[in-house]
Amino acid sequence: MISTDEFTKDPSRVFKAGETVFREGDEGYVMYVVLDGSVKLSVTGRSVEKVGKGGVFGEMALIDKSPRSATAMAATDCTLVSVTSERFKSLVQETPGFALEIMSIMAARLRSMDRRI
Amino acid sequence: MISTDEFTKDPSRVFKAGETVFREGDEGYVMYVVLDGSVKLSVTGRSVEKVGKGGVFGEMALIDKSPRSATAMAATDCTLVSVTSERFKSLVQETPGFALEIMSIMAARLRSMDRRI
Repeated sequence: MISTDEFTKDPSRVFKAGETVFREGDEGYVMYVVLDGSVKLSVTGRSVEKVGKGGVFGEMALIDKSPRSATAMAATDCTLVSVTSERFKSLVQETPGFALEIMSIMAARLRSMDRRI
Repeated sequence: MISTDEFTKDPSRVFKAGETVFREGDEGYVMYVVLDGSVKLSVTGRSVEKVGKGGVFGEMALIDKSPRSATAMAATDCTLVSVTSERFKSLVQETPGFALEIMSIMAARLRSMDRRI
């Protein structure tokens, strides 16, 4: 979980429960930080994670510039901040704690995936 | 893949083909960089990845301090550098490119896992 205080001045958008944020295979240009509410991630129709306040998702498209690996849908009404690639890189460079937090979130996802093998 | 030049002065060790570097469930205190040769990672007996020169593995134990999520075995005779948690944190803080490389390696692993779901 990251501190949402860092992102209160970034552009945010409200998604209604059930609204799709992005779909597996889409081109991805931003990462999302959940300011409020929660988002469900699924891969090939199977739910893999629920991301709540302070959680992030969509970071992989920024890191390796590949299409979205999961579908993200608002599980409740939610407020999401979008973080561009430039902003992401400056956060990684200027806020080492941010890099470690993102790695920690990715490690948790990998462990959760390992349990599914 | 990371530049191995950064690690030529770190302590390294040669593992013989077939030798176990660590086992799933072990406590983990270091990450490994492959200087030479290759290492096979497996989860619950299933091979998930082969890591060659310039590759890293074992980084998750440094990030979230949990037990090893995979077993690592030398696929060929190989030379591995061990990177402690302190060294890892200083690399993340002082070499932003390093943080992005580690994230990129983790993103590739997550995508590979997604394909197995």
